[in-house]
Amino acid sequence: MVASSPRTLQASNDKAHEDVRVAVLGASGYTGSEIIRLLANHPHFRITVMTADRKAGQSIGSVFPHLITQDLPDMVAIKDANFGDVDAVFCCLPHGTTQDIIKSLPKNLRVVDLSADFRLQDILEYEEWYGQPHRAPDLQKEAVYGLTEIWREEIRNAGLVANPGCYPTSIQLPLIPLIKANLIKCSHIIIDSKSGVSGAGRSPKEANLFTEVSEGIHAYGITKHRHVPEIEQGLSDVAHSKVTVSFTPHLMPMSRGMLSTIYVEMAPGVRIEDLHDQLKAYYENEEFVCMLKKGDTPHTRFVRGSNYCHVNVFPDRNPGKAIIISVIDNLVKGASGQALQNLNLMMGYPETTGLLSQPLFP
Amino acid sequence: MVASSPRTLQASNDKAHEDVRVAVLGASGYTGSEIIRLLANHPHFRITVMTADRKAGQSIGSVFPHLITQDLPDMVAIKDANFGDVDAVFCCLPHGTTQDIIKSLPKNLRVVDLSADFRLQDILEYEEWYGQPHRAPDLQKEAVYGLTEIWREEIRNAGLVANPGCYPTSIQLPLIPLIKANLIKCSHIIIDSKSGVSGAGRSPKEANLFTEVSEGIHAYGITKHRHVPEIEQGLSDVAHSKVTVSFTPHLMPMSRGMLSTIYVEMAPGVRIEDLHDQLKAYYENEEFVCMLKKGDTPHTRFVRGSNYCHVNVFPDRNPGKAIIISVIDNLVKGASGQALQNLNLMMGYPETTGLLSQPLFP
Amino acid sequence: MVASSPRTLQASNDKAHEDVRVAVLGASGYTGSEIIRLLANHPHFRITVMTADRKAGQSIGSVFPHLITQDLPDMVAIKDANFGDVDAVFCCLPHGTTQDIIKSLPKNLRVVDLSADFRLQDILEYEEWYGQPHRAPDLQKEAVYGLTEIWREEIRNAGLVANPGCYPTSIQLPLIPLIKANLIKCSHIIIDSKSGVSGAGRSPKEANLFTEVSEGIHAYGITKHRHVPEIEQGLSDVAHSKVTVSFTPHLMPMSRGMLSTIYVEMAPGVRIEDLHDQLKAYYENEEFVCMLKKGDTPHTRFVRGSNYCHVNVFPDRNPGKAIIISVIDNLVKGASGQALQNLNLMMGYPETTGLLSQPLFP
Amino acid sequence: MVASSPRTLQASNDKAHEDVRVAVLGASGYTGSEIIRLLANHPHFRITVMTADRKAGQSIGSVFPHLITQDLPDMVAIKDANFGDVDAVFCCLPHGTTQDIIKSLPKNLRVVDLSADFRLQDILEYEEWYGQPHRAPDLQKEAVYGLTEIWREEIRNAGLVANPGCYPTSIQLPLIPLIKANLIKCSHIIIDSKSGVSGAGRSPKEANLFTEVSEGIHAYGITKHRHVPEIEQGLSDVAHSKVTVSFTPHLMPMSRGMLSTIYVEMAPGVRIEDLHDQLKAYYENEEFVCMLKKGDTPHTRFVRGSNYCHVNVFPDRNPGKAIIISVIDNLVKGASGQALQNLNLMMGYPETTGLLSQPLFP
Repeated sequence: MVASSPRTLQASNDKAHEDVRVAVLGASGYTGSEIIRLLANHPHFRITVMTADRKAGQSIGSVFPHLITQDLPDMVAIKDANFGDVDAVFCCLPHGTTQDIIKSLPKNLRVVDLSADFRLQDILEYEEWYGQPHRAPDLQKEAVYGLTEIWREEIRNAGLVANPGCYPTSIQLPLIPLIKANLIKCSHIIIDSKSGVSGAGRSPKEANLFTEVSEGIHAYGITKHRHVPEIEQGLSDVAHSKVTVSFTPHLMPMSRGMLSTIYVEMAPGVRIEDLHDQLKAYYENEEFVCMLKKGDTPHTRFVRGSNYCHVNVFPDRNPGKAIIISVIDNLVKGASGQALQNLNLMMGYPETTGLLSQPLFP
Repeated sequence: MVASSPRTLQASNDKAHEDVRVAVLGASGYTGSEIIRLLANHPHFRITVMTADRKAGQSIGSVFPHLITQDLPDMVAIKDANFGDVDAVFCCLPHGTTQDIIKSLPKNLRVVDLSADFRLQDILEYEEWYGQPHRAPDLQKEAVYGLTEIWREEIRNAGLVANPGCYPTSIQLPLIPLIKANLIKCSHIIIDSKSGVSGAGRSPKEANLFTEVSEGIHAYGITKHRHVPEIEQGLSDVAHSKVTVSFTPHLMPMSRGMLSTIYVEMAPGVRIEDLHDQLKAYYENEEFVCMLKKGDTPHTRFVRGSNYCHVNVFPDRNPGKAIIISVIDNLVKGASGQALQNLNLMMGYPETTGLLSQPLFP
Repeated sequence: MVASSPRTLQASNDKAHEDVRVAVLGASGYTGSEIIRLLANHPHFRITVMTADRKAGQSIGSVFPHLITQDLPDMVAIKDANFGDVDAVFCCLPHGTTQDIIKSLPKNLRVVDLSADFRLQDILEYEEWYGQPHRAPDLQKEAVYGLTEIWREEIRNAGLVANPGCYPTSIQLPLIPLIKANLIKCSHIIIDSKSGVSGAGRSPKEANLFTEVSEGIHAYGITKHRHVPEIEQGLSDVAHSKVTVSFTPHLMPMSRGMLSTIYVEMAPGVRIEDLHDQLKAYYENEEFVCMLKKGDTPHTRFVRGSNYCHVNVFPDRNPGKAIIISVIDNLVKGASGQALQNLNLMMGYPETTGLLSQPLFP
Repeated sequence: MVASSPRTLQASNDKAHEDVRVAVLGASGYTGSEIIRLLANHPHFRITVMTADRKAGQSIGSVFPHLITQDLPDMVAIKDANFGDVDAVFCCLPHGTTQDIIKSLPKNLRVVDLSADFRLQDILEYEEWYGQPHRAPDLQKEAVYGLTEIWREEIRNAGLVANPGCYPTSIQLPLIPLIKANLIKCSHIIIDSKSGVSGAGRSPKEANLFTEVSEGIHAYGITKHRHVPEIEQGLSDVAHSKVTVSFTPHLMPMSRGMLSTIYVEMAPGVRIEDLHDQLKAYYENEEFVCMLKKGDTPHTRFVRGSNYCHVNVFPDRNPGKAIIISVIDNLVKGASGQALQNLNLMMGYPETTGLLSQPLFP
């Protein structure tokens, strides 16, 4: 595929019969390796470039031995990458540096960025939460927020997709349909999330050692986690007013998985069944968002390794209130799986291509 | 020690120099074995009877090999236990059967009951949540609720102490001082708790298999957990009005530990510092409840195996609201440790006797 | 596909373009659910019958919520199963009862049995290790041992395949090529294996509770594990003499995975490189057995959820001795994955069909 | 206590009624914090100095929140430590730098060194395995190897004790009595060990992240682990001839615990019962080494957090061979607990002082 289009606006459907040549920038981290894992059996996407500055020259099998049977080019430093061989890019780099790199890519490439750099529409908010001015404000304006089930049409034609964070994905998928239908009040949303450790990446830090994480739990980043503005932006957008949430993430001993328990107040006259019906109807035709039957509780284990999101709603003991629970695999629907879902869409393939592996349990 | 006193009212201080002979009923479960572990180095308490109906005739080392070096009598069926040799009893039996057994014990024995049978003052509430009428309502009236730091004076003279549940302990310790000081509203308390698996006991159940619990998390008993009436009773009592809480427990992959994240609305004019100051002052002279420094987050790992409870308060993004986090080891401060703390008190020994082992980390 | 052939001898290649209708007997256990997971995206196999006596009438999603998106028939009791709709059977039942059930199946069905019932050629040995006489000795004679890479041609035409145990798979794959080439002595083989918990199945047992398994390790079944005769049969067969091994399995806190560390004495004059070369050459064209590069150590994590087996050999400090390490996922290559590999072969499809999902890491 | 004696030869019994002032060098690592945990309730030892160069000025509670209730001096840089206030030293520093530091300490101090620096009597062997010449060879000659049950009398009067490594402790405790009694051959000892992660310390390394360790196992340092020469030295010493062992350590997902499975050949005519009897007799009066009853298997869980070592022997399927299994907590009997056991002995207190806490299970 040789795409010569500007980064936005043009659909790729006419080229769907050809292979898409993909670059993975930042292939030595967990979101990078997860992209590679998912692409291993993709019928149309083919990895032609992998970058990893500190691992340049190494094979993927030496860095991630679970991928040892993959026949892929060795990793190169990003400065040595040949983007002439590439149609689309997954950018799995840390926030901050990502802006400059995407700015420097050839304009014809379709890009899905897994960092936080293009998620916040308001660059002042970016500066406030990330402590530095945004260095690619024009590109930011073009970026489309990649929560697939919600922004599907915009993503289809986007040149640059800002792939959502894991917490925001698990939180917005159940809340946005309820806010859209005016079923819940936006003034009293309390979110208690529990995450696996892989969200912290592969860089060695004392706090993420096995000995520091195993057999325990703690909250972190209380009121200050950088996913807060992203969550509030997404909810405010559909609420048509500024939403402020209470968000408390917890780190717990599992490698993958994320559960959000969300406490909401229903709008006057709304019953718990209305919430259930709305979510069921909204996601009826979606492969990846699954509204459970009444009373069934979502477990992170039952979506492990997959792109699925399980959701359910429960009545509170206090009348008029409800408890919403959602689970995802933070590395799949919360990162690389949703990224692939987005690129499928951008390239004109069925959204589920390469993503239908079942969850791994036990 | 030969106590001939009625079950209530008499302090034991005058006998403190003699050994207290202790029976552990239900020694083959986790709360039973934990009592035995804690008593191993107790200078005044000596186990003379251990019962376990299905393990009668076995040594403790054959049932719990970590206790193999203990020199203790073999376990007997409860019907064969000789309570003439006993001054005090830890009752670690399942709820339901416990009532009848405690009713049949000699009246002079001091009893700490770790089941739920005597925790609810209102026997109709017991019947509602446990599905059967209470069969020892007179005894229920005598029972004192064993949240040591709150009901110390009542416990000191009690004949029968109803040892609190693990969730209620982790929740009431931080909330009661705040409610007493009118610092928080009782109408909007949301409690999101996370528990280790040992709370479910040693009976084999599919849901508690390693393969079903490892690497995941889920909520359970949403709005219906049997600790709800106990929590509400404890808070209502100090609030002088009926408190209804939202309580959602989660099961997670750790053997020991419990973290409660509690979302509250502060009373008008109250600041987060007021909450911190009140808890700090309230527990200043307590060995086992530790108010952390501002900003420090409680981790369950840092109380593992110990009788400590760590607490802290955090501002919410929504003004006027606060987040309170507490951690305990569910088997120690949430069960057997607090039971020993209570019996120390009842027998006139320093409350901390045998309980000062430091947490085990990592 | 309507197969009317006797259970042995006829290849299925001519019908490969049609769907194979598959029954899963014992769908409520871990090997059953794993078969269903693997078949979810199989292009040629379609599940038409699932049995589970105690869960009859339930959907797969209610028993295994990770499979909730599968559109499958409800489970039925085995006595109610209609085998007229079926071409092939995966039998995931406990040993002992399996013999009678397979004996009663229509003769035209191709069967892969995951129990131990047909693995031992010598029915007296079966009786010795399993404590009961074999009740289907004639069927036993027809059964082919399903270690795919070793017995491929025999499996292709088999009517009944006895799928290997997990330990025997991890042990025979590296040892058989070395014994065939006379590179190691068979008189001094010591095998130290470490297994995840899923091998013990989903039946609730105290020993497999999270609290009993987490954060620890122990050996079990020392010298008495029922996989011993299966291992010795496989090695003796290629050694052309009776091999007696030392086999010590250990249970450790992981749901999936198995690592065997094997200590061997090399034949006179043989060097460690010879072992490496032989295994590399033997498995050169195999998709699923991967000889690592010199010095690389196999990790169970790097085959998790996949049908791969990683192997390597290392020199011992004692000259003339070698250490061989192999890893598999006990539920995939050690059970359901290999079963599917075998049925693919029996039905004339590429052996790797439906089995190329990459390992899930982290 | 004011000790003015040379580092060796003088017993401390006459001062036993006074407090021993203890320094912990390297208090910010896991062996350091474990010493502090164990000393919290020691009746005679009092910590007066704690060093941690990178954490100088911090309280122990800020570095290890599980020790927050300890009333201890802040940590200082080692160059600022005042050893005038100190009678004894636990040295928990990395190997290599330890030599110089111990060399520079006042000569009157009793020292237990938990590093590897003084374990190897042959300084050429030290150089070979650690890649640098030994810089305190004279001090090395004075050092006594601190495997308490074996070298008790030498330790009692030592000025400098080289505390054993965790693997060597778990291996020598069962093997030395058997070698002393000529019950096993020393030419064919194969050791397969499994360790928890805390042995790797608290320094952040990719390999020890939760995500890299959880739910898996792998061997490491095959034939090259630095504990090999220490093991061989200890066994050779009692065998009166050079012993070469096969030693393969494995890293597995648990924070604490170590299990060694040891495969040996018995001397001619020796039966498995002889091994059992010898170990039972040898450790009959030892508090911390516990020979289990015939058939009982040691579990690491049953010694967790304690100074106990459980051992048992099992017959192999191959006549004349035996399997020996031992378990310890690598941070207690394998490090800080044994160090305290040694200092108790050196200072004239009962060896078990402060070490009788029972194992923590579950």
